[in-house]
Amino acid sequence: MFERFFTKENEFFQLFERHAQATREAAQCMLEAAKDLSLKVEKAKRLQELEHECDRITHETVDLLHKTFITPLDRDEILALIGKMDDVTDNIDAAAQRLVLFEITEVPQDIVKLCEVLIATQDELTEMVGFLRNMKNRDKILVCCMEINRLENQGDLLHRNGIADLFRAYRNDPLTVIKLKEIYEILEVAIDCIEDVANVAESIVLEHS
Amino acid sequence: MFERFFTKENEFFQLFERHAQATREAAQCMLEAAKDLSLKVEKAKRLQELEHECDRITHETVDLLHKTFITPLDRDEILALIGKMDDVTDNIDAAAQRLVLFEITEVPQDIVKLCEVLIATQDELTEMVGFLRNMKNRDKILVCCMEINRLENQGDLLHRNGIADLFRAYRNDPLTVIKLKEIYEILEVAIDCIEDVANVAESIVLEHS
Amino acid sequence: MFERFFTKENEFFQLFERHAQATREAAQCMLEAAKDLSLKVEKAKRLQELEHECDRITHETVDLLHKTFITPLDRDEILALIGKMDDVTDNIDAAAQRLVLFEITEVPQDIVKLCEVLIATQDELTEMVGFLRNMKNRDKILVCCMEINRLENQGDLLHRNGIADLFRAYRNDPLTVIKLKEIYEILEVAIDCIEDVANVAESIVLEHS
Repeated sequence: MFERFFTKENEFFQLFERHAQATREAAQCMLEAAKDLSLKVEKAKRLQELEHECDRITHETVDLLHKTFITPLDRDEILALIGKMDDVTDNIDAAAQRLVLFEITEVPQDIVKLCEVLIATQDELTEMVGFLRNMKNRDKILVCCMEINRLENQGDLLHRNGIADLFRAYRNDPLTVIKLKEIYEILEVAIDCIEDVANVAESIVLEHS
Repeated sequence: MFERFFTKENEFFQLFERHAQATREAAQCMLEAAKDLSLKVEKAKRLQELEHECDRITHETVDLLHKTFITPLDRDEILALIGKMDDVTDNIDAAAQRLVLFEITEVPQDIVKLCEVLIATQDELTEMVGFLRNMKNRDKILVCCMEINRLENQGDLLHRNGIADLFRAYRNDPLTVIKLKEIYEILEVAIDCIEDVANVAESIVLEHS
Repeated sequence: MFERFFTKENEFFQLFERHAQATREAAQCMLEAAKDLSLKVEKAKRLQELEHECDRITHETVDLLHKTFITPLDRDEILALIGKMDDVTDNIDAAAQRLVLFEITEVPQDIVKLCEVLIATQDELTEMVGFLRNMKNRDKILVCCMEINRLENQGDLLHRNGIADLFRAYRNDPLTVIKLKEIYEILEVAIDCIEDVANVAESIVLEHS
């Protein structure tokens, strides 16, 4: 019985970690497509697979909740964590699909930089999710949350300046402004969703301490 | 006393159902306006009435919460359900108003199809909300949630391809791109809000099982 | 021990009130910049200071939660309140920064009016947050919530009509439409966030009554 309990507890965290790793690869795909547009179709395809895998992991997590009596975190917290994590992946996928759908032929340098910030933020998320296994990691979790906040601010700055640049660079091409602006915004939302996960983690730490 | 308790329990579900039905009619109005723009003013007017009715139902639900000691679901859950349901109506209304305000003269076929997906999703929501009366319907509720997820994915695809088409079809008319793109996005948000209701319902089922 | 308890309780509400007052000044800065664009750099700078101050107050609130055993409201409620309040400030800051970044040279009258609605809504928020000190203020809190809802509707109308006007006024200048439309939308989101705070307050009142 005890064994079963710990096994299941472990399963939840394994699902979180698998999700975080797939999302990390998704962010990497987006970066590579943004850096070299000749790869965009191939990378968007791989990213869609990763998005489906994350969906499956999310459903597996919800199913596991159905079958588990004692959960390592509150049910609501587990749903909030996996739900927000899945929003990150969905947004990275949406950004990459738009490179293809909008027939983008040129990617501003600040979009590449924003992808790099996204990866750094997702790395903090992956670390933080691992720490959630043990509430003794409370301080480490809070450090991750602070770092995620810092990176989100950095991303916000890139996003703002990047869009201001768009208006100058594509003064006579409003459709390109609309397209690239949307990609900036979706990447920014992806990073905001990571911050939302951090906020859930922070509130878990507060509840359990 | 018991009678009173059951009467009130019934009242909450009756409010949910009235809200869902009014929103169904709202979605139907939007579809008809999108199909035949000569009806847009008349349909947007009717939709605004429905939106006000839904606001009244929402406030009635909140008032009933104030007056009820034992509620059929947690207070937070009732607030989350009715709040998200009201977001659906608000977004359908916002989309229809934009047909008028933006002086739209042509509606792409994919917007009509997206309205049809919206109606199908709202139909699932109506059914699901009825099932919430009894936790024995747990499996039926989860089937509705899955179907809502499937329809949301279908809507997302229509929305993405529809916007890509806009950029091609209105290459020399950026303002029309901006206007129709916004209508696509609001309809997509309406469907996302239905998915949010489904997520609340799913978490209720998890909590009560 | 009792003294300590009350002292801490007081600290939470003092933090809320300091946050609400700084946000009020932020909204005032935005209004003044919108009214007189020659002030936009100066006002955006001051607003950024206020945004940082609000961030500090938010972190102080979270830190206080860490150190406090008995809190005047549930931990989740305190996090939700201060989090949403901080979203208001972030959005006001984002709107003002865009006046500068987008090199706006003309502000439509409806944006000025929307800033005035924002200030009125923030004033209701400040009052409501003060009332949260004592659950005997329940009815006063609910009146504030209703007034915030009414103002939000008024803002929504300004926002819709304002954007419709943009399409007419800048028929040949799509980039200006994009820029001003975004400023409208961010101000609308700021007001929506105040409504979110009101919804949290309403649900606190329901939980505690």
